[in-house]
Amino acid sequence: MNATDLTKTLAQILLSRNWTVSLAESCTGGFVCATLTELAGSSKWFERGFITYSNEAKTESLGVPPELIEAHGAVSEQVAKAMVEGARINSGSNVAISITGIAGPTGGTKEKPVGTVCFGWATESQTVTKTQYFDGDRHTIRRQATEFALAELIALRRS
Amino acid sequence: MNATDLTKTLAQILLSRNWTVSLAESCTGGFVCATLTELAGSSKWFERGFITYSNEAKTESLGVPPELIEAHGAVSEQVAKAMVEGARINSGSNVAISITGIAGPTGGTKEKPVGTVCFGWATESQTVTKTQYFDGDRHTIRRQATEFALAELIALRRS
Repeated sequence: MNATDLTKTLAQILLSRNWTVSLAESCTGGFVCATLTELAGSSKWFERGFITYSNEAKTESLGVPPELIEAHGAVSEQVAKAMVEGARINSGSNVAISITGIAGPTGGTKEKPVGTVCFGWATESQTVTKTQYFDGDRHTIRRQATEFALAELIALRRS
Repeated sequence: MNATDLTKTLAQILLSRNWTVSLAESCTGGFVCATLTELAGSSKWFERGFITYSNEAKTESLGVPPELIEAHGAVSEQVAKAMVEGARINSGSNVAISITGIAGPTGGTKEKPVGTVCFGWATESQTVTKTQYFDGDRHTIRRQATEFALAELIALRRS
């Protein structure tokens, strides 16, 4: 499914439960929020987004401890977990998604190459994190990360 | 200029001053943030974005007084002003942009038809607000609002 179809499917799931979703985006920089809100009527189920590009934003808007970023790096499942839980709690949403990665073309390392993206999905009862490696240029990595984030949330809610 | 060229121009201005920008988006829902962060190296001058779709988000993330929303509506220059000043102060950025409008296809009224968008631009020393009316479908309105927000900030910084 492409991003538009993923958005429609997610919207149906959220509407059927009377749930809202909120986002914490770093490397996608608003791509997921822009994708979701492209659908008319999204204000019924989209609550808010935190585009926390800087580390200070992650700490101030989402409550990610600076020590966690220092210990594991901003691109880590530990930080993705703190981001998504902060987003869900601070927004009061039922579910949240977080994305933090290296979209490139610079910023990659041997351990965390360009295309490394960490994700978090949180509901009231559980938090799931994953790391994925995407190929392609900056735009392609951001698009793939957006689609993966939505597809996994849909899969999670069906499980 | 299209959004990509506007982003490049704005990036040059911000980099030359060692400034950062933050966003408060409602109707554009992350479109401006996603546009700006599509440019490689944007982390040098893009600080954070507040995608405050709900009224609660506008109040909690940006400090917009609920009475102001009640008195003037979320789509008003008064709320755009409070949004942009909250975004600039809460982010610690040198400049900020706010956008709140009616992207449609529903939500329009006789007084505020679909396509009505209120903007704010803030620096440490001044805040400017404007209301614009855009034609077209939801996507076209959001795209035009994104380009207008960036073009006006560039014009403001050159004045």
